[in-house]
Amino acid sequence: MPDPLVTLTTDFGEDSPYAAALKGVLLAVNAQARLVDLSHQIPPQDVRHAAFFLAGAVPYFPPGTLHVVVVDPGVGGDRAILYAEAGGQRLLMPDNGCWTLLPGADRATVRRLVEPAYWRHPVSATFHGRDIFAPVAGHLSRGLDPQLLGPPVPDWVRLAVPAAEAEGGTWHGEVVFVDHFGNLITNIPADRFSPPTAADLRAQVGGTAVTPRWVRTYAEVGPGTLVALFSSSGTLEIAVPHGSAAARLGAGVGAPVTVYLEAGERTPSPGPH
Amino acid sequence: MPDPLVTLTTDFGEDSPYAAALKGVLLAVNAQARLVDLSHQIPPQDVRHAAFFLAGAVPYFPPGTLHVVVVDPGVGGDRAILYAEAGGQRLLMPDNGCWTLLPGADRATVRRLVEPAYWRHPVSATFHGRDIFAPVAGHLSRGLDPQLLGPPVPDWVRLAVPAAEAEGGTWHGEVVFVDHFGNLITNIPADRFSPPTAADLRAQVGGTAVTPRWVRTYAEVGPGTLVALFSSSGTLEIAVPHGSAAARLGAGVGAPVTVYLEAGERTPSPGPH
Amino acid sequence: MPDPLVTLTTDFGEDSPYAAALKGVLLAVNAQARLVDLSHQIPPQDVRHAAFFLAGAVPYFPPGTLHVVVVDPGVGGDRAILYAEAGGQRLLMPDNGCWTLLPGADRATVRRLVEPAYWRHPVSATFHGRDIFAPVAGHLSRGLDPQLLGPPVPDWVRLAVPAAEAEGGTWHGEVVFVDHFGNLITNIPADRFSPPTAADLRAQVGGTAVTPRWVRTYAEVGPGTLVALFSSSGTLEIAVPHGSAAARLGAGVGAPVTVYLEAGERTPSPGPH
Repeated sequence: MPDPLVTLTTDFGEDSPYAAALKGVLLAVNAQARLVDLSHQIPPQDVRHAAFFLAGAVPYFPPGTLHVVVVDPGVGGDRAILYAEAGGQRLLMPDNGCWTLLPGADRATVRRLVEPAYWRHPVSATFHGRDIFAPVAGHLSRGLDPQLLGPPVPDWVRLAVPAAEAEGGTWHGEVVFVDHFGNLITNIPADRFSPPTAADLRAQVGGTAVTPRWVRTYAEVGPGTLVALFSSSGTLEIAVPHGSAAARLGAGVGAPVTVYLEAGERTPSPGPH
Repeated sequence: MPDPLVTLTTDFGEDSPYAAALKGVLLAVNAQARLVDLSHQIPPQDVRHAAFFLAGAVPYFPPGTLHVVVVDPGVGGDRAILYAEAGGQRLLMPDNGCWTLLPGADRATVRRLVEPAYWRHPVSATFHGRDIFAPVAGHLSRGLDPQLLGPPVPDWVRLAVPAAEAEGGTWHGEVVFVDHFGNLITNIPADRFSPPTAADLRAQVGGTAVTPRWVRTYAEVGPGTLVALFSSSGTLEIAVPHGSAAARLGAGVGAPVTVYLEAGERTPSPGPH
Repeated sequence: MPDPLVTLTTDFGEDSPYAAALKGVLLAVNAQARLVDLSHQIPPQDVRHAAFFLAGAVPYFPPGTLHVVVVDPGVGGDRAILYAEAGGQRLLMPDNGCWTLLPGADRATVRRLVEPAYWRHPVSATFHGRDIFAPVAGHLSRGLDPQLLGPPVPDWVRLAVPAAEAEGGTWHGEVVFVDHFGNLITNIPADRFSPPTAADLRAQVGGTAVTPRWVRTYAEVGPGTLVALFSSSGTLEIAVPHGSAAARLGAGVGAPVTVYLEAGERTPSPGPH
């Protein structure tokens, strides 16, 4: 059996010692744990960014991987710390909704951490990553029964996710994530959106009328062309190959996106979303 | 027995190949070494930043962990390279004081590296991380007796650490570290500082009079409120939840911090610091 | 036998989930793979930067290490994905020249990936890192015979590398890489360049006449002094200790560099380059 995998996702950055301290405490509990950095560059306190990040990363890991998530603006307050099993993955995270975009989150088994025997003491008021998440992760990775962490909870914070809406030949959605390249990932679902028959799409992004070229890949057009395509996460994406659509359009998370489909294109079916 | 843990802390960044080359050389000597990145984002040549970083991270690792630190503005000059055992941890680093804030540094066993048999040749004048630190770390992680690296040394560079001073009901200190969130970590010791009885603290930070709210956790106040609290490293901290105190106050490392305790609060006792 | 080493070099950044997804897919195929992050901070789509990065890192790894490189502006187009064995190292990368500065690249054994049995399906049009590179790397690290990936190819994209030229006592070259410290790495070869007898070098960098001090190490001069020296990669480097030569001179990749050697210094020999 390979040593247990434990992934780390935080907003701690790498110029501060916080992620390193977390690793040290975890390895002091279980020196055999195999740490995998997912990111320490989640924007500070940005639970929503963390949620889309995790949805794009966690499902690809082997079943049973333990994911430690410390994006925790409520640290020290009365927010709970949760252990969840969802979609075959295991997670430790604050109860702030950061994990609720994962497939299977609705049907998760969730416990609230209340057993201090697995914590580091004294527990500081501002650094539960080091004092609670890390030692608990160490113990779990050694095989601790999660039932010992605390009681099951029936409910937890769920991130409110905006849903795109179809209205005749028009989709109304918004930008939900801006990636490292400045690509604008929207919430308009690819599986219910029919590619336009015209070469260009008529759209509005953040109030600006645009006509992005409809493509299958970035490589189809010259650098700097505004394009629309299906993202690798299965939604409509606005991009500028070799450039940044976010910078070009001055648009970020929350910017409204409207797409006008031409007559003759498939009208979106009223499916669940 | 698990494979040996070797942590890496550098100012190399990740856009340059230097940290990667160091890893390659180390693994070429000992492919079983288990590398743990602490940071490659120490600000360039900032020995003082490295010292506070290491003090906040290294002590949490399992005893016997080997920590390789390459923040080395004196590379190629006559500064020594040291191997130290301090507080149960093992370290390789330039003799520039970067490790001397660690607990136990005063009572460390320290050797100077002089034995070229464990180095990579030819040794470049500008990249000892690749040519000395990495191969020596590889050999140590395979069990090399540190006595073979070079002779013990009785003295080494110690970082001059400013100490906060109490004067009646007033503390005079300074900012010693600005973390990733813009929190201002001071050198005013929490264990000798009595929380104020008033809701707000009277203070000066970098010459600006401020009245931060005294809190136990960031979560007690609304985003954007200036607060004072005990940091996770045990000193007074000035912070702005969901914001940056450094940006708000225009203050950085070295900024003087004065705190006025009200009558009725405990006068600091004249303990060692 | 230690578990197999697999290194990762991408332009994905760490704020987006792409590198994390790649790791997940790879570990889902081979949970025993030992991942080593080289960089996720290659500038977006910068194949040339990746090439110099890899040349400065990959050769130091133990023979047989597998290096996964995803800097892939042509993703989804008709560029091939290659598996190569060069200089004892193994690589997976897009056919864009990013690996062709490695020693041994000219005599490499190279295959084109055509066998979809080792890919993740459906293969997205925009994220081959997750859908092709990662699972193939997982299989290779488990011992898959590379012959099963696809047929050998006789040719591949080679990065055009500018060569410095000597003309009497003058060298004409250019900046080929700017490192994390702002050091300007040129293509003027150290092994054919004789250090000047004068303390200062006469040079032009990006059109600016400069007289950098000739040094062996950064530590020889005070912070802020413009210096010239032999870089750790074996070419002429222009640097500012404790500062950034790139910022000081406003020079970046491609900036012409001319060096005037004084009479009495060795005239460069007309060797191969």
